[in-house]
Amino acid sequence: MKLYNYWRSSASWRVRIALRWKDLPYEYHAVHLVRGGGEQFAPAYLDVNPLSQVPVLELDPEPGAAPPAGAPPRRIAQSLAILEYLEECFPTPPLLPRDPWLRARARQIAEIVNSAMQPFQNTSVLGYVKETLRGDDQAWIRHFLVRGLAALERTAGETAGHFLVGEAPSLADVCLVPQLYGARRFGVDLTGVPTLLRVESTCNMLPAFAESHPDRQPDAQSAPKP
Amino acid sequence: MKLYNYWRSSASWRVRIALRWKDLPYEYHAVHLVRGGGEQFAPAYLDVNPLSQVPVLELDPEPGAAPPAGAPPRRIAQSLAILEYLEECFPTPPLLPRDPWLRARARQIAEIVNSAMQPFQNTSVLGYVKETLRGDDQAWIRHFLVRGLAALERTAGETAGHFLVGEAPSLADVCLVPQLYGARRFGVDLTGVPTLLRVESTCNMLPAFAESHPDRQPDAQSAPKP
Repeated sequence: MKLYNYWRSSASWRVRIALRWKDLPYEYHAVHLVRGGGEQFAPAYLDVNPLSQVPVLELDPEPGAAPPAGAPPRRIAQSLAILEYLEECFPTPPLLPRDPWLRARARQIAEIVNSAMQPFQNTSVLGYVKETLRGDDQAWIRHFLVRGLAALERTAGETAGHFLVGEAPSLADVCLVPQLYGARRFGVDLTGVPTLLRVESTCNMLPAFAESHPDRQPDAQSAPKP
Repeated sequence: MKLYNYWRSSASWRVRIALRWKDLPYEYHAVHLVRGGGEQFAPAYLDVNPLSQVPVLELDPEPGAAPPAGAPPRRIAQSLAILEYLEECFPTPPLLPRDPWLRARARQIAEIVNSAMQPFQNTSVLGYVKETLRGDDQAWIRHFLVRGLAALERTAGETAGHFLVGEAPSLADVCLVPQLYGARRFGVDLTGVPTLLRVESTCNMLPAFAESHPDRQPDAQSAPKP
């Protein structure tokens, strides 16, 4: 499989964690989201993802079945769609609990990050706030991250053990750890979320989380001065 | 089961479609998102959803198992987490195809709506753009909806039959139809998305989509003048 991704993209990091957790090898294809205005806006990349975003997982051809001539490769965009695909096709070791309600709660936490936090820190969104609206993009992102973190802390309180939902990592933790990295980048105060920080420390002891960290990726760069 | 929802919330409508499609009865619990500043901000509702959003599905107690005294009801927030729960617990009739890649593509389309379109039309987000940033909230929402619709049209082009992914409705269609309703509310030009409009017409012939329409809900009101 081939992963179109970017070292510092939090959604890319989610997928890297799952691939490493499930011990699945992949080709790392870097898409530089900043250089030259962003490689994700190149016309050729629109065939990979018409939303001009990472990550995108490109699947291997089906074994024994030659794809029809001219057929595009099978690709999946949207990190949670990729994570669900990996969970269905490579269920061991799992990233969801067995109990249906706890599975739902893991997904609920993942979606708080995915749809109520990360969209507001997306580069193109911050650009619109800063350049088109002439607004304070740092206050903007802190507003939504603070709100989301409070909801995560309270939600996790009902199910957390060593991890956000019980005693094994799940999609909830896979989304949490990259989001906390983003919150620090944007200078958000994390003193009010002790459960999240405790779980993050536990996750960071696992190679799947540590080895997929942005700083350890082949396209990692020193962060530019703020 | 009990559904905390609001007639005109697009994420609520998604869940109503799935419940009706799977023929699951539920108690309709209206949460008025506008009146008195929004019932979702009431302190008691924070126990239901700390993000102050709808929909939330409250499950029935497990058969035969009396919940521990003082235990909160089992609840699920985030519409896609609810939809996956319903699909796992009530798989027939399905809302995902059988093929793993096509399942992923249905989820990809659902996530384009859920994380790259709907968050930007959320009432609280529009409020921040208009009141805190003194920005043009209508231009803002049109920007993100136009971008998302173009991506949906192009993505659907690879898999659409009578529905967005093949010949049966899926989570992709469940998210599409309420999003197109939202796009019309915000005055977005839909001439560039013929595939989406064709699939919407097909969906609207199904009772699950038609009977869950905002205008047919018990808390529906005449739309205020724009």
